[in-house]
Amino acid sequence: MKISGLRGLALTTVLLSAPGIATELPDPESVRTDQLQLMQGFPPPADKQITQAGFMRPYPNPRWSFHHARELFPSRRVARGNEGVYALPRADGLEQQIADLTFTGPDGEPMSFTQYLDSTYVDGVLIMQHGKVIFEQYQAGVPEDEPHILWSVTKSVVGLLATQLIEEGELNPDALVTDYLPELEGSGWHGATVQQVLNMTADIDYSEVYADRNSDVVKYSLAAGMSPVPPDYPGARDLYSYLPTITAGEDPHGKSFRYRTTHTEVLGWVLRRVTGLSTAALIEQRIWSKLGAEQDAYMLLDSKGTEWAGAGFNVTLRDLARFAEMVRLNGSFNGQQIVSPGVVDTIRAGADREIFKAAGRDYQPGYSYRNQWWISHNDDGAIEALGVHGQMIHINPGVGMVMVRLSSHPVASSAQTMPLTIPAMEALADLLRDNAP
Amino acid sequence: MKISGLRGLALTTVLLSAPGIATELPDPESVRTDQLQLMQGFPPPADKQITQAGFMRPYPNPRWSFHHARELFPSRRVARGNEGVYALPRADGLEQQIADLTFTGPDGEPMSFTQYLDSTYVDGVLIMQHGKVIFEQYQAGVPEDEPHILWSVTKSVVGLLATQLIEEGELNPDALVTDYLPELEGSGWHGATVQQVLNMTADIDYSEVYADRNSDVVKYSLAAGMSPVPPDYPGARDLYSYLPTITAGEDPHGKSFRYRTTHTEVLGWVLRRVTGLSTAALIEQRIWSKLGAEQDAYMLLDSKGTEWAGAGFNVTLRDLARFAEMVRLNGSFNGQQIVSPGVVDTIRAGADREIFKAAGRDYQPGYSYRNQWWISHNDDGAIEALGVHGQMIHINPGVGMVMVRLSSHPVASSAQTMPLTIPAMEALADLLRDNAP
Repeated sequence: MKISGLRGLALTTVLLSAPGIATELPDPESVRTDQLQLMQGFPPPADKQITQAGFMRPYPNPRWSFHHARELFPSRRVARGNEGVYALPRADGLEQQIADLTFTGPDGEPMSFTQYLDSTYVDGVLIMQHGKVIFEQYQAGVPEDEPHILWSVTKSVVGLLATQLIEEGELNPDALVTDYLPELEGSGWHGATVQQVLNMTADIDYSEVYADRNSDVVKYSLAAGMSPVPPDYPGARDLYSYLPTITAGEDPHGKSFRYRTTHTEVLGWVLRRVTGLSTAALIEQRIWSKLGAEQDAYMLLDSKGTEWAGAGFNVTLRDLARFAEMVRLNGSFNGQQIVSPGVVDTIRAGADREIFKAAGRDYQPGYSYRNQWWISHNDDGAIEALGVHGQMIHINPGVGMVMVRLSSHPVASSAQTMPLTIPAMEALADLLRDNAP
Repeated sequence: MKISGLRGLALTTVLLSAPGIATELPDPESVRTDQLQLMQGFPPPADKQITQAGFMRPYPNPRWSFHHARELFPSRRVARGNEGVYALPRADGLEQQIADLTFTGPDGEPMSFTQYLDSTYVDGVLIMQHGKVIFEQYQAGVPEDEPHILWSVTKSVVGLLATQLIEEGELNPDALVTDYLPELEGSGWHGATVQQVLNMTADIDYSEVYADRNSDVVKYSLAAGMSPVPPDYPGARDLYSYLPTITAGEDPHGKSFRYRTTHTEVLGWVLRRVTGLSTAALIEQRIWSKLGAEQDAYMLLDSKGTEWAGAGFNVTLRDLARFAEMVRLNGSFNGQQIVSPGVVDTIRAGADREIFKAAGRDYQPGYSYRNQWWISHNDDGAIEALGVHGQMIHINPGVGMVMVRLSSHPVASSAQTMPLTIPAMEALADLLRDNAP
């Protein structure tokens, strides 16, 4: 598929939202994983060699690195457990209808579902309805059984666990963050509640603009060990040294929504303190070992063994589908009640839509953000987990559908993919609406 | 168990063979993994924090780090495959006899098998006879299902695969290393054959004295990424940049045995070139996916994604037992012929014992070294794979026995453990000799 087949240049040249940086998107056909030969050869030729410094850029490195992150970074296993695999039931017959499904893209022109997948640089996509797999596709060259980085979909896994601990009375959402983490007393989290961190309405002096190399997200990525730290770097070299250095924002806590990965790192720290378990161990004990997963998953670690709680979970596509389906089913999956039904109810209820609207994310109209999940508030009650570069869980209770997507989009921000994803998900829901369970 | 119960101070103070460095061995009771609280707490207290730089020292870091290596380093999965687990059969009743088994230690005093295990800082030990597990024990605090670093036992896995490729005609043992790796034309491997590398009789200007910080093994460990590289370090920062810089030794190739991990790194490179597979993928495809293993294994990687072919394989104790049992059974295991019977025959035949003797390893009397395995040439035909800090596979065809051991001994050299291990293995063989299959 040539990008020119995608109705002109609308997708080939895209300006990032960050000031001063423009990126021309490559033709998806020119960056097929099976043809790139990244990391092939012993040693690979210099232009095919990927090291830790090349994890995120230049493109097309992510086409290899996003499903080989453990080969570049320290990682901690999230074991699938020793129980049997819960084989996902399948229902054939809808593949072609889904592939050909057409919707109106943001430029007013028709776009097929296949074009949507290609133009969002999908590595793998799986759709289930009423508990059965109806569509599963991998980009050629992407191994089905190798975990893929979820980026901020990680946040929603951690947020789900936090909500479960609240449900159990182990975590108090109205308590101050500093009640659990006195280490943050002098930081920007002073005075913020756990719920404000969960909803990202605590305000801190921290900017997260992925395309701006002066953004605080760079300091975060150095502390997490996502990028090699320059020898003379004066800043923090691990997450728990970095977080206490972040100072207060200008706004009072609770009044505005500002998406910041560091909130989830704080949340992860709170959960470690509350449970006595590492983030990986908590996910493993509470969720991953119960899903009937096919493969061990893993979390990436900073230089002191702390997981990237806001970004570092790596799982396979089918195992991500098991997780998503468990959430759709209010926590009941594989013969077990894995999280309480009330947990999913709490998340689905969403948060203040006016606060969300004021954040200016026009590509998510009508949304709110609750407990690390994106709540669409659409008629079907869809909720989402989203990660940079196109990672997604979309759960549509109205039509009994989940879609999970792993991607290596050249641009980090979801602003790139959501204007296509929202109409695609609506069209998919309409196609599936009348299918009986 | 107090070390004083171990007949005095013979074991508490041991001089390393390297000049100028003395190490006092800690009382094993004082370094129990379950009591050390290494890496406990979020963050751990400074004296319990282990980072990449602390992987090997100071002691007792290895009591945690040797079964958490992936949490400090990049790693590549060696998948167990999607087949069922081959459950190891068990035969109860001999545990106490084995624990109480007494032999004469190197100091002429009696030592029990339990004392032997404690005094060699065992993390886990498993003994099978006639295909059944008769003894399995873990140090408290060591998880059974977490892969443990094998150090140079890795070499024997790679050597077995090389021998298989020779058997298949894919690898020519009489060819020059440089026929496969022209990159080494100007190096010390010029003129050496594959067989000389397999038997470590090629001579290079490279010293491997673990306790000497000026030894070339330090350059190797920096190239492999086992230790953080100082910013101003002028040497090679990855294995395939380092190996070509090693120059010729003083002796002609083929005349002397000198144990060097870099030979195995060269061998790993040859196998990658021959098969087109990474070392991890080769082990996975040819062996690990066929053993009915319980857990995925993994290999540690340098900064460019090259496995430490001489040191970096990590597996669980029971999976290592499956591998050892497969070798005992001449490659036939779990319903498959995994390697050819001739492969094991070749290894068991051993190599020139006079050449071995001249190397001065008096703690392995009568041994030879063939295709990366240690050949005892004893009456039972025992062969061994050995790794620093106490890792071991011991295979005794005469009594149908294998013993696998994972350890975190404070001292690297096998010179520490072999004087105890050889009489322990003889006593064990005598105990089991008359057991019918």
